[in-house]
Amino acid sequence: MQVPDTSAGSASPQCSLRGKNMAAPRGDTCGLLERSVRARVPPLLTDLYQFTMAYAYWRAGRHQEPAVFELFFRDNPFGGGFSLFAGLHDCLLFLRGFRFAADDVEFLRSVLPPTTDPGFFQFLRELDCSGVTLRSVPEGTVVFARVPLMEVEGPLAVVQLLETSLLCLTNYASLVCSNAARFRLAAGSGRQLLEMGLRRAQGPDGGLTASRYSHIGGFDLTSNVQAGFLFGIPVTGTMAHSYVTSFTSLEEVCPQTLVAANSDLAPVDVISLTKGYLRRVCELLGAEPGKIREGELASFLSYAIAYPCNFLPVIDSYSVSCSGLLNFCAVALSLCQLGYKPLGVRLDSGDLCRQSLEVRRVFRLCSKHFSIADFASLIIVGTNNISEKSITELNSKENEISVVGVGTHLVTCTEQPSLGCVYKLVEVGGRPTMKISEDPEKSTIPGRKAVYRLIDAEGHPFLDLLSLEAEPPPEAGRQLKYFPLGCGDSPASVTPAQVSCLRQEVFLKGQVTQPLCSAAKTRAKVQSSLQTLHPRHKRLQEPDSYTVALSERLHSLVLELQKSCSNDSSFLLAN
Amino acid sequence: MQVPDTSAGSASPQCSLRGKNMAAPRGDTCGLLERSVRARVPPLLTDLYQFTMAYAYWRAGRHQEPAVFELFFRDNPFGGGFSLFAGLHDCLLFLRGFRFAADDVEFLRSVLPPTTDPGFFQFLRELDCSGVTLRSVPEGTVVFARVPLMEVEGPLAVVQLLETSLLCLTNYASLVCSNAARFRLAAGSGRQLLEMGLRRAQGPDGGLTASRYSHIGGFDLTSNVQAGFLFGIPVTGTMAHSYVTSFTSLEEVCPQTLVAANSDLAPVDVISLTKGYLRRVCELLGAEPGKIREGELASFLSYAIAYPCNFLPVIDSYSVSCSGLLNFCAVALSLCQLGYKPLGVRLDSGDLCRQSLEVRRVFRLCSKHFSIADFASLIIVGTNNISEKSITELNSKENEISVVGVGTHLVTCTEQPSLGCVYKLVEVGGRPTMKISEDPEKSTIPGRKAVYRLIDAEGHPFLDLLSLEAEPPPEAGRQLKYFPLGCGDSPASVTPAQVSCLRQEVFLKGQVTQPLCSAAKTRAKVQSSLQTLHPRHKRLQEPDSYTVALSERLHSLVLELQKSCSNDSSFLLAN
Repeated sequence: MQVPDTSAGSASPQCSLRGKNMAAPRGDTCGLLERSVRARVPPLLTDLYQFTMAYAYWRAGRHQEPAVFELFFRDNPFGGGFSLFAGLHDCLLFLRGFRFAADDVEFLRSVLPPTTDPGFFQFLRELDCSGVTLRSVPEGTVVFARVPLMEVEGPLAVVQLLETSLLCLTNYASLVCSNAARFRLAAGSGRQLLEMGLRRAQGPDGGLTASRYSHIGGFDLTSNVQAGFLFGIPVTGTMAHSYVTSFTSLEEVCPQTLVAANSDLAPVDVISLTKGYLRRVCELLGAEPGKIREGELASFLSYAIAYPCNFLPVIDSYSVSCSGLLNFCAVALSLCQLGYKPLGVRLDSGDLCRQSLEVRRVFRLCSKHFSIADFASLIIVGTNNISEKSITELNSKENEISVVGVGTHLVTCTEQPSLGCVYKLVEVGGRPTMKISEDPEKSTIPGRKAVYRLIDAEGHPFLDLLSLEAEPPPEAGRQLKYFPLGCGDSPASVTPAQVSCLRQEVFLKGQVTQPLCSAAKTRAKVQSSLQTLHPRHKRLQEPDSYTVALSERLHSLVLELQKSCSNDSSFLLAN
Repeated sequence: MQVPDTSAGSASPQCSLRGKNMAAPRGDTCGLLERSVRARVPPLLTDLYQFTMAYAYWRAGRHQEPAVFELFFRDNPFGGGFSLFAGLHDCLLFLRGFRFAADDVEFLRSVLPPTTDPGFFQFLRELDCSGVTLRSVPEGTVVFARVPLMEVEGPLAVVQLLETSLLCLTNYASLVCSNAARFRLAAGSGRQLLEMGLRRAQGPDGGLTASRYSHIGGFDLTSNVQAGFLFGIPVTGTMAHSYVTSFTSLEEVCPQTLVAANSDLAPVDVISLTKGYLRRVCELLGAEPGKIREGELASFLSYAIAYPCNFLPVIDSYSVSCSGLLNFCAVALSLCQLGYKPLGVRLDSGDLCRQSLEVRRVFRLCSKHFSIADFASLIIVGTNNISEKSITELNSKENEISVVGVGTHLVTCTEQPSLGCVYKLVEVGGRPTMKISEDPEKSTIPGRKAVYRLIDAEGHPFLDLLSLEAEPPPEAGRQLKYFPLGCGDSPASVTPAQVSCLRQEVFLKGQVTQPLCSAAKTRAKVQSSLQTLHPRHKRLQEPDSYTVALSERLHSLVLELQKSCSNDSSFLLAN
């Protein structure tokens, strides 16, 4: 059995928790994932107005008209300077499987107005994505507000029908991936991160999605077994408080013996052994035996006998310093004597920093007193309602927490629970379209675009340029003029050291045209993409804003369409 | 085709949007739902520690020991005075289908430590919920913090394994149902509520769950077609901005004619007709024809020709007052002339209240000028980033919005994105257990309980009493002593006018023992349960807190267990 490298945060080996899993997910995972996407995202999982619009297009004979939609968000989440783009993998599986079953169409027939032409339902029955082309930013890329992440091109009625599903598959995935990346940045590289939010997510699939995209965003481990099964994410976990409180007496421990590691010796009475260590630990620390909970000791012993190589109990069911820590040390020392390596402890309430210092002090004392070098560096896991803020504080306060478990604040994205991706029409029948709202934030940028990322001499991206698709691309080492978004109409100039094209074709004629990336591969992409980002944009608080700009020709098109808007009523005079 | 009564908010018929759906969901819905729950909540969708604990119990021969867990939350959400309990229906389907497939067990074998006894995997293969009993508050009931909502009784290892799934199925369901109920209270009974959050939910299933439980909580309509298909929720929707901006000229309108309603007359040239009305509307309002967008008019006309009985366009793609409203009136007046009834308009940006007043003013002017009575009372739908706060403001400002669409703030529960339900062991082997934390909030209440709701002479519930199961129930008209939670150890007395038992047995020996409630039935239960709640607890801001209390005997048990905690180490002296 292999243990995968979980080293986005590469904690030092002594204090890292090793999630158990195969190196790759098991079985026919791709088929499994595809079936799962089809089951989770049937073509009816969309807003009704997609069908009423599709019908109106069909009725007007416009349904096959070529159209282009763009998917983007308007603000970077969490007051940050960047986001990560995620969800593409599921979108591709969704597009590949997009078809209406007879049942679906019959239901639509019952819901749409009775005047709907039956030919439309026949049209739906035959519909698939063979006419759709998707150009997308690769999954796991650092992205910025207002940059079109996906361009969906195809017959007007079809690409309209895809809107809600594509938004649903990218919105939360990108949000939670970005949130995870922020936790990863806040935690620094020396600490492992464990996702454990399933019970607080938006239902079962919210939990599964959270596990997948938290891992991609930089978490090392998950508690979610199904996420391990489907996506190959290392899973971990030992015990809850209920396990501890279910024991009252040492009589419940069964068996009461343990065979020493790698030995043929007779089983050892581990209860007597542990009682002996407990007395010695109490003496060493000057602790009061009167406050030690027998049930807690029994639970630790039972667990250690069941899993002598995986001993990591939760030690705050009663009192860390008066009971849990003492019981842990006694059982762990017994395991050491029998040739096993205990892993460490979990703290789940109170002041984690303060307690971790006390725990480490006791570990070091025991290490010295009982001459067991590894005892000093046992893992301390902290898991009490951790937020980005509290994880940031860990870095400013002295503490000894080596693994942090995060649930609610990670999966619900408490600070901003939705990303607000939108899907806007930018071209139809070869003609650029634009929504010119009275609310300038809600206006769109017309036309089919190319998106370039400009990179400076140090290798940091510094500007994303949106230009018309027909324009020649910007060139490295050559000055170009641009119009930064949100800065009025004044142009600026710059000479990029490198230029990269941000999007690529990933779906054509019903086929996925790039290899589907595993979670592990996308996770690596996130880290490499974040690596190149300048720290001033990566700062979690008050980052410098990254420039997104229009090319000169795209900027002219915007002005032209805004202008044409103001005199448009000649049609009233025509008959 | 029937149109169901969506009258939780019972808006007056003139200004209500009629969602289209069959009265009941179609097909073999129960089987469909059950398969859907099994697919969404496989038994591996849980935290790994459930399995490590189950193994430790199994190894110690304790796995069959009878145990009782309780599910509850610690604080009412959104700073409110109550919550609604939801998710039971899915929990029951989950329990009924709980079984491990061979694949599941093989995956667990690869994940659990290699020392795990193979007999444990055989145990898992044979496991189901035939030994489990569930007592629960009925779904859709008003509930309060600290009251045990579910009691799960069964073999220790089995009820432990159910924890994460039951939490996952009730946490978000109860949260979003409570959020919806607050929106319903904020909106008042005169306005219809439309849920449209699919694209902003936590992935596909988050969206579906949101639609189901928003409806149960009091929303009238959803945009989510799959929610209509599965749960029978009335669905509605017409068009997005992209539809409007996809048109530029009246030449795109096709066909350009419409047959009058209920007539055999020749089709009418609806473009000329509408142009005529547009000129007359401009004259009537003194509007500048120069600002009217031809593409918008073309889109409205195309839609009206496709769906003459369902005309409700979004009118803010360019400018409401200079273009959208004028175009709407022209098309709607044409429809009226041809014997059709237009529905109304949707506003999606800017100051909804102000705009709705202007729109209503114009509707009234047209109604009078063109002598069409119904024109004055057309529906105005508002849908711009609506929150509980903004919906409350609607009631304090003058406005004419009859239907409100809510997305992000409803489904993500922005104000508090998780409920924090927990699942705690309260009895094992017939012995009450208690977690006595240094953080008193995290201590649990031991023992198997009965839960009674005490009701005053006006029919309002005023106290939920937790007592030991073995105690005689409180009696109506008879004084009883109680210990309010969170108020120290001082008792109080009260005489209830009525007493009801809050929970009932819903699952026994692998079977669901009560009829499964449809969404519609649970929705009615929510409204009747809320109806009895006193307004002081229902107030959205600073409500009076509702009393949850312990019986005298339960209170004594808590004290006893806390005391026994302090002297527990005689075991250290025994050998």
